[in-house]
This record gives sequence, structure tokens and C-alpha cells, in this order.
Amino acid sequence: MSNCLVAQSGGPTSVINASLSGVVEECFNHPDIKKVYGSLNGINGILNHNLVDLYKLLDGSKENVDQLKTTPAMFLGSCRFKLEDSSIDDHQYKKIFDAFQDYDIKYFFYIGGNDSMDTVDKLSQYAEKHAIDVHIIGIPKTIDNDLFGTDHTPGFGSAAKFIATTILEIAHDTYIYDIKSVTIIEIMGRNAGWLTAAAALARNDYNVSPDLIYLPEIPFSKHAFINDIKKCQKQKNNVIIAISEGVKDIEGNYISATSASNDAFGHSQLSGTAKVLECFVKEELGCKVRSIELNVLQRSATHIASKTDVEEANLIGKSAVEYAYAGKTGIMMTLTRSDAFSYRSDVCSIPVCDVANKEKVIPREWINIEGNDVTDELINYMRPLIIGEVAIPYKNGIPDYLDITHLTE
Amino acid sequence: MSNCLVAQSGGPTSVINASLSGVVEECFNHPDIKKVYGSLNGINGILNHNLVDLYKLLDGSKENVDQLKTTPAMFLGSCRFKLEDSSIDDHQYKKIFDAFQDYDIKYFFYIGGNDSMDTVDKLSQYAEKHAIDVHIIGIPKTIDNDLFGTDHTPGFGSAAKFIATTILEIAHDTYIYDIKSVTIIEIMGRNAGWLTAAAALARNDYNVSPDLIYLPEIPFSKHAFINDIKKCQKQKNNVIIAISEGVKDIEGNYISATSASNDAFGHSQLSGTAKVLECFVKEELGCKVRSIELNVLQRSATHIASKTDVEEANLIGKSAVEYAYAGKTGIMMTLTRSDAFSYRSDVCSIPVCDVANKEKVIPREWINIEGNDVTDELINYMRPLIIGEVAIPYKNGIPDYLDITHLTE
Repeated sequence: MSNCLVAQSGGPTSVINASLSGVVEECFNHPDIKKVYGSLNGINGILNHNLVDLYKLLDGSKENVDQLKTTPAMFLGSCRFKLEDSSIDDHQYKKIFDAFQDYDIKYFFYIGGNDSMDTVDKLSQYAEKHAIDVHIIGIPKTIDNDLFGTDHTPGFGSAAKFIATTILEIAHDTYIYDIKSVTIIEIMGRNAGWLTAAAALARNDYNVSPDLIYLPEIPFSKHAFINDIKKCQKQKNNVIIAISEGVKDIEGNYISATSASNDAFGHSQLSGTAKVLECFVKEELGCKVRSIELNVLQRSATHIASKTDVEEANLIGKSAVEYAYAGKTGIMMTLTRSDAFSYRSDVCSIPVCDVANKEKVIPREWINIEGNDVTDELINYMRPLIIGEVAIPYKNGIPDYLDITHLTE
Repeated sequence: MSNCLVAQSGGPTSVINASLSGVVEECFNHPDIKKVYGSLNGINGILNHNLVDLYKLLDGSKENVDQLKTTPAMFLGSCRFKLEDSSIDDHQYKKIFDAFQDYDIKYFFYIGGNDSMDTVDKLSQYAEKHAIDVHIIGIPKTIDNDLFGTDHTPGFGSAAKFIATTILEIAHDTYIYDIKSVTIIEIMGRNAGWLTAAAALARNDYNVSPDLIYLPEIPFSKHAFINDIKKCQKQKNNVIIAISEGVKDIEGNYISATSASNDAFGHSQLSGTAKVLECFVKEELGCKVRSIELNVLQRSATHIASKTDVEEANLIGKSAVEYAYAGKTGIMMTLTRSDAFSYRSDVCSIPVCDVANKEKVIPREWINIEGNDVTDELINYMRPLIIGEVAIPYKNGIPDYLDITHLTE
């Protein structure tokens, strides 16, 4: 008899709790897994002995586990935490593995993105080196879709569905006035343009917008940008533009005005790319211009989650338990696309050392030659990931999500 | 045999096309109404003889009329247009009534807000004065809920549902980090705080956010604002604030930095209130602060429309045709609340001259004494308006709305 521990880290997605729910559900299937602990606020919860009994917290109720599946953000809270290099200083590692021993933890699942996989890699290497019998597995999540080794990441599909839907709705909003206008929509994604590219999924039988898409993979030129808009304005009144928060000029400087502070991992904190360009276009073209920042809604709008995404996130959580139970460690779970024509995905795994600290950007051949749009190949890659709607329960007119007050007590 | 004309004006809502659909549906029921014309881009379409045959445009298909009900923004396009005073210059009036005669229009329905009711008032007075047999009726719509003479306006409920849902989701997003943070959410509404007040509908069994609500009805003090936040921070880490784009200081100056340009009706164009306050709070308190502008999503997110709102908007459109057919003119359709305990609404009407150019703001007694929250009475007033979800059809992962390319051809 031994216990399982699960934690969440990094930025939220609409389906990270669907993976958590998958871990809990699969543990139910293994009677020799006695308890499922959750660590509050990622690694910090382990370091501070802030663990909760997840069965208890969910009242052992199937209904709650189901509701968890479609509750936004992180039921266990998050952290931004970079483990020291154990060869330099291993006191954090000792604390963590002491806690594992105290709580009789044999399986540890860390649901997170790039930075969290660095943690999984370091901990599993440490365990191996010191012959500690804890199976440590990374469960991928990020709206950014920038994780290496997996066809796509849980969380991307739901964010992409929100972005595509919102841009279609903005197109309807924009086309009502018969005057020249430019609408600039800023989308998350520091270095990888997957989410910005998802704007192209707003196109349908009648809607050709967004008319221009600018990705961080391509150096941004204000001069070319204005020329692109002028060219579009010859065809139509209302030009809609999707742009990544992370676009940089040829010298590598962010277009955004406020790239001052850095987070714990040294990433620049961005905002305001669309606002900067709104002012620029107003000056240059003099027409009506507005900027819209989709902001954290991209990662938290679970009410419009992708069914495909929720199901895959849940399955990958369940599979992680199976893999750990079968003796695997030091891996990240992955999704593979097994049928290119009619979409079907399978769960596999990859050594986490091959994933950690790498970033998957959009291949150049999936971006058009002019660098201001995506190709059909990229659209065909993304489309299946946003398919399907989830029946979110509502109460008093708002979604009926799971209580998160344990995070604030 | 005579014809009907319908047009839309002002800013979009999620359900303005539900009213249009109601007009079309009810006209089907009156065989002596031969044709239903739509004027493209409001009054401009009449002045420029840019009318479309709505039966034809919808292929006379019930399916299309249904789909129209849940298509965002304005199927007929919009305008911002203020009619001249006919006693000074009546050439616009002559053009409009000439067009009515050319197209054999006996019923004219104008779906819009405050400014559009001014147009309905002027046209119906002109018709009466010159004994022209055209029945002119205003159909209210505005997300702002600031129309006089009606319990609430179609469009408000859906915007309120989007705002409440989004703020609940932002609360989940915010509570994941155990650090002090302030989140400032900017909500539409120039002078009336109804939409900002709707943020309170995000509160439920476990969520007390937003913690502070600032309405344009109450003069805003930056000093009191900082003190309010400090007080909240004694109770909890994550403070969530809903603030109207239109808050002004005691001297009547907008907090927003960019109140430069004016629209056709002389309204200041606002943006950036939350951004201005984000910088201010960062300076004063030094904690993590972020600002989120909900922007046009509030009025265009039909994918999360309120069922109550869609049904009322549709019914009010149908009733307008009945009233016009029964000989009424110079009125605006209204909604009355007939049962205070279990919500039930009825359609009535009011002389449009009693409505035009007036603005209904939140009564002082529905705002708390401190001026930083709303009362339970206001919450109870708003709650029924966001109840119910609409089954929006989806195609390829995005909502399947009605084609609007006739607006851009």
C-alpha cells in the first residue's frame, strides 16, 4: 500500500483540472493506492507540507470529480518555482523526498508546461541517482502548445476554440459599420505563435477574417505592417488583424511598450503590443482603429472548452497513473496523432529530459511566404483540436464550477 | 397590401438580431404585409435607397430565421446618425418619407438605443404633422440597460451573463497564486453602471469576488480606492475589482487617460480606465496588479447569450408588429416585470417622446453607502435576466452563425 501525490504548476488552462480529475479517477481503480494527496501551489505545497487529501476534499464523490473536469484554472493552485541544480545545492531535494517519505508517496504527477517539466526531470534524475523508489511523471498542459515531443498540448484546443469563436464574433461586430476600420487583436504566446495562428480557425464559409496574422516566429516590420493593411483596405472596409503579444522587430526588440519586468524564469512580462500598434495605425492611416487584448480569458474561458481537449486532458491524466503503476518514471505523457485524415489521438510518453526547457515553435513552412498568414496545413493541424462542445452545468445563470475556497483559506 | 421596413442602429448586442427575427416571424403571420424590407446601415440605407428584401435574403427559410435569432451584432448593419430638427431643415425627412412611399412602407421598426429612439420620435412626429399613414415603432436594445420606461433592455441580460461568467472564471484564474494581487476589470457603460453592477452576479456559494465595484453614478476618488483595496487585502490575497469605463472624479473628469475624441452624438470615446488604475495601484501598493478590459466581447459574445434575453428580444420584436398592425405609432416597446417574486415579464409600450434622449442610471439606494458595491436589491433585479442558456449550433468547432457578407458587398 502506498500513496499518490499530484500537483499543478505554471499558468492555467481550461482543462488542467480535467487531467487532475483523470489522475484521481484512475487512482480509484487501483485499490493498493491508498490515498491521493494534492500539493497546494505546486512544489511549494510539498516544501511547506501543505498537502490535502484529495479524496476528502472531493468528498469521495463522483459528481465532484466530474465537476472538477470542467472547472477552470487550477484546483490545487499553482506556483512559479525553479528548482536549484542539485549538484550545487540539494537542500530543496532533501526536503521534497523527505516529504515523499513522510506521506508514503510512491507516485508523483506534476501537471505543467515547459518549466514544470524541468522540475520533473530534476526530481526523477535525483531519485534515480539516490535509488529512491518514487515514480515521477510529467503531465503536459499549456495553452501555448509549445511543448516538445507531443503532437499538441492539452489546454491549447480550448484556448484556440475561445480565440476562434471570439474573433468570429468580433468580425460580426466589426462589419456593421460601412466605414474603414482596423481592429487589432492581441493574443497570448511569448515565442510560439500557435495561439495567434488559431485566429485563422475563425474563418468559415462567409468570414475571411482575420485578414492578417502576425506571429512571433517572423520578425515584425511596422513598415510592412502598414503596407499589408493598405493592400487589404483596397479589398474591404474592415480589416481584422491577429497579432501575438510577443512579436519583435528584426533586432529582437518587442513591439510592446512595456517589456520591463521579468518573471522567476527570466521571461519578459509583455502587454500592450496591440495598443502600441493601434496608435501607430491611427497616425499612419487616420482611419478608425481599435485594439482588443484577449488577456487571461484565453486560458480561463472554460465555458467554451473544446470537448476534444477536455477528453484528451482527462485521458492523459488517467494514462499517467497507468504508466506510473507499470513502473515508468522520468517521462512526460504525450499525445500522438495516429490518423492524419480523420483525426484520432493516442497517449504515449517521452523521456522528460528530451522535453524540459525546450520550446516548439511553428515550422516556417506552415507560415505563408509573406509572413503575414498561416497555411492550410497549419489550419488542418489545428482544426480537430477545437471540435466538440462540453455541456457545462449552470446555476443561477453562471457556470456551476467546483468550490476553490481551500486555496484561499 | 403594404410593406414593412425594419432597421438597426447604434452599438451591437447579442440579441438585437433576435428582435429582427421576431419582426420577420410576426410579419409572416400577416398575409396582407406583402414584403419585409431591411434597411442596410440604419437610416442611411433609407436615405441611400439601400434596402434589401428580407424574405429573399433569408431564402424564406424558417431555419435561417431561427439561426438569425442567435447571430451576433446586426444582420442589417448599423449607423450613428442624428436626424436634423425638421423645423430647421426637413430635407432628410422628405427623402425618408419619399422612400417609404416608393417602397409602399406602412410599418417602420427601428431597433436601437437612446439615440435611435430620438429618430423614432422625430419621424413619428413628422408623420403625424403631415398626416402620413406610416406606423413607426421603436424596439429597444442596448447592453447598457440605460433606456427609460422599460424594466430592462434586451441585450443587457446577455452582456451581464458574459460579464458574470468571465469574472467568475477570472476569479478561478486569480486564486491559484498565493501572493498578493489586484485585478482590475474594466466594463462598458459610459454614464450608467448597470453592466459594471452585473459583475456582482459572479458571486456564488464560494466566490465573493468582485470585492469592489465602482460605478459611474458615484464620484471616484483615487484615495478612497487605495484605502478600499488595503482594507480588502487585510482579509484576502487576491482582490478583484470591477470598474466602469466611465468613472469620473468629483470634478467630473474621466479617470481614463484618453478621453480625446467625440462620436457623432457628442459622447466621449473612452478607454484605459483600468490601465490607468493598474499603474496607480502598482505605484501605491507595489503588489502584482493586472488590468483586463472586457471590450467589445461584452456585446458580441452571443455564444453565451442569456436564454431569457434572447426570448424577450424575440417576443418584443413580434409584439412590435402586432402593435403597429393594431394602429399604434410613435411608441417604444417596453418590458414590464409583472411578478417580483418569481420573475415574469410582459411586453407593453410607452410614447417614444417620453424615452428619447433620456438616460436611466442606477438609483442611489441600489448602491451601498460606501459607494463601492451594489445592494442585494440590485442583484435580485438583475439575476433573472441572465437565467438560461441557448443551444448555439456549432460547425467545425466554432458557432454556426448566419452569413453577413451582404453587409460588405
